Amino acid sequence: MTLARLNNLTASMRTSKLDSVILNPGPTLTYLSGVQFHLMERPIVLFVAPGHDPALVLPELELPKVDLFPYKVQVFAYGENPSEWENVFRKAVQALGLDAKRIGVEPRQLRLLEFCYVKAGAPESEFPDASDVLSALRLKKDKAEVDKMRRAVKIAQAALEATIPLIKIGMTERELSSELVIQLLKNGSDPEIPFAPIVSGGLNGANPHASPTDRKLQTGDLLVVDWGAAYEGYISDLTRTFAVGVVDDEYQKIHKIVQEANAAGRAAGKPGVPCADIDKATRDVIEQSGYGKYFTHRTGHGIGMEGHEDPYMRRDNLQLLEPGMAYTVEPGIYLTGRNGVRIEDNIVITETGADCLSDMPREIRVVG
Amino acid sequence: MTLARLNNLTASMRTSKLDSVILNPGPTLTYLSGVQFHLMERPIVLFVAPGHDPALVLPELELPKVDLFPYKVQVFAYGENPSEWENVFRKAVQALGLDAKRIGVEPRQLRLLEFCYVKAGAPESEFPDASDVLSALRLKKDKAEVDKMRRAVKIAQAALEATIPLIKIGMTERELSSELVIQLLKNGSDPEIPFAPIVSGGLNGANPHASPTDRKLQTGDLLVVDWGAAYEGYISDLTRTFAVGVVDDEYQKIHKIVQEANAAGRAAGKPGVPCADIDKATRDVIEQSGYGKYFTHRTGHGIGMEGHEDPYMRRDNLQLLEPGMAYTVEPGIYLTGRNGVRIEDNIVITETGADCLSDMPREIRVVG
Repeated sequence: MTLARLNNLTASMRTSKLDSVILNPGPTLTYLSGVQFHLMERPIVLFVAPGHDPALVLPELELPKVDLFPYKVQVFAYGENPSEWENVFRKAVQALGLDAKRIGVEPRQLRLLEFCYVKAGAPESEFPDASDVLSALRLKKDKAEVDKMRRAVKIAQAALEATIPLIKIGMTERELSSELVIQLLKNGSDPEIPFAPIVSGGLNGANPHASPTDRKLQTGDLLVVDWGAAYEGYISDLTRTFAVGVVDDEYQKIHKIVQEANAAGRAAGKPGVPCADIDKATRDVIEQSGYGKYFTHRTGHGIGMEGHEDPYMRRDNLQLLEPGMAYTVEPGIYLTGRNGVRIEDNIVITETGADCLSDMPREIRVVG
Repeated sequence: MTLARLNNLTASMRTSKLDSVILNPGPTLTYLSGVQFHLMERPIVLFVAPGHDPALVLPELELPKVDLFPYKVQVFAYGENPSEWENVFRKAVQALGLDAKRIGVEPRQLRLLEFCYVKAGAPESEFPDASDVLSALRLKKDKAEVDKMRRAVKIAQAALEATIPLIKIGMTERELSSELVIQLLKNGSDPEIPFAPIVSGGLNGANPHASPTDRKLQTGDLLVVDWGAAYEGYISDLTRTFAVGVVDDEYQKIHKIVQEANAAGRAAGKPGVPCADIDKATRDVIEQSGYGKYFTHRTGHGIGMEGHEDPYMRRDNLQLLEPGMAYTVEPGIYLTGRNGVRIEDNIVITETGADCLSDMPREIRVVG
């Protein structure tokens, strides 16, 4: 299967006139090889070049992973002394004849570390942005991928359901976040969870990207929980917002508005619809309620091996949805200094419409 | 405290003739600001430039974090449409007068994503490698930092002690890894653990960088567990190797050799000693035993906010140890296709010698 993926890549590289693409540890490398490496101070680069076996530059201590590749790779291994590394990269570039050629890069993933070693070996080359070619590979999920995402959603939902009875007034965000991670693992998430859960109560929930703090949950708080699991490398990314005890009428009202916006966004997905329309569907509900300026981010992002990937549900994105595309719908209302609400689900486009992978109740639930 | 750190940086930038340094989300940015951002598709960059308030380019939805900065920053925020971003970066560069100047970068952390936006705004600038200036900031840990590392070690040790009674023959590496993560969190690790534990039995333990698999623990395996906790952003990184039931005499022997090598490495640390000598201390023991060629990596790496940072315990590193430097001592023997052993501790150099933060028994223990 990974060989077919590699062939897809080389075919689209020919169309894009790319002589090579370089990948460092990250989801694209794992997608194309099935092998997982970690980012570290020792640079690891896979060179894909049509007409050649791919070349892999890596530290000697990672050599055992070469046997896991499902196709033949040319191996260029280096020892622990960084002064050797440049020369090893140069050999890989020469073996593939890549100097003065077009070597595509993935700017969101590639660090200057790897880039500079490749560039030193190929000083006359151009390095065009190959993000479109690479993200297109992973854009439409096949059945096996959707099954893994569905499993990642089920694990996440089971984990939060197991955590809810443990939520108590006076508990800190950090304590609750730890408990949720424990439940994610107990319920079968991969040991590397996709992101540390966002658990934010009261005014912290009005910051969409808050990290858990030592603030204690108080009666009257809205509590935003944004969490996900990983299953065989595919992830889920969900959000639910709870009421800690009795909350003000306005907070109940904004919860209801966001719930309606979420429903409108979920209903809007089908093949042929531009991503912008998903954003419009949620935003219209919130704007009509008078809270438009408090919905400060796009409606969603693609999801798969990464938490954030193509396609993005943004008002300016005219890309058309196609079967197999997967994304989040996550409208929110953030009242700075007071409280916030977000409700997030994971959607996959089918031949005829959209399948929502997540089904945990979205109504406001009282905890604590 | 972070202001003092910022002043240290600008002082050494003057010495290194750097007009600015750019930082993306990662440990150096957190060290200098106390604020945590995550790497994502939206670029975030802090520009430090002597004589100016630092400038921060970030997405609007991260604006609530600006208030967490302990000093004044010039804020350049952008919306969700990527076509705006280049212009916002250009404004930040102009506000600091950085075009055609020397802007230092951190290649291990900075992605092409951030780099290309800054370069587009400062097309005439040079981008020298500022790794030495930046890693020097975090090289010597102060008492508060060592206290956090000590706590991260205690949490990790308590977590593994709680996990050991749960280890059973027939359990998979992945199951054991999940259980260990649960115990790390229960024992007080930050929710973002520093790395997914390496749990590798039998032939998998002969790969120093193995990821946990579905292989089941078998009688006769050596079991390598390489794990760590995080406490307030500072980490521990330890390894112990166990015997699953009765193991061959040779495996007991290599465990004993590695234990002696680890002891020699721990004993070798004191101010004024070159890092190379720590490597030599462990390697001599293993070479004299006849297993030299099976010790395939350096003896250790620096540790603090990152799992791998300066100083590196490598045979070619003549850097002298100084009080406050912290590093791992982790010799190993890897018999490919059979079994492996590694024993790893965390050391801090004191005024007169070395303090080993970890004290969990290193003798071979039988599990399962």
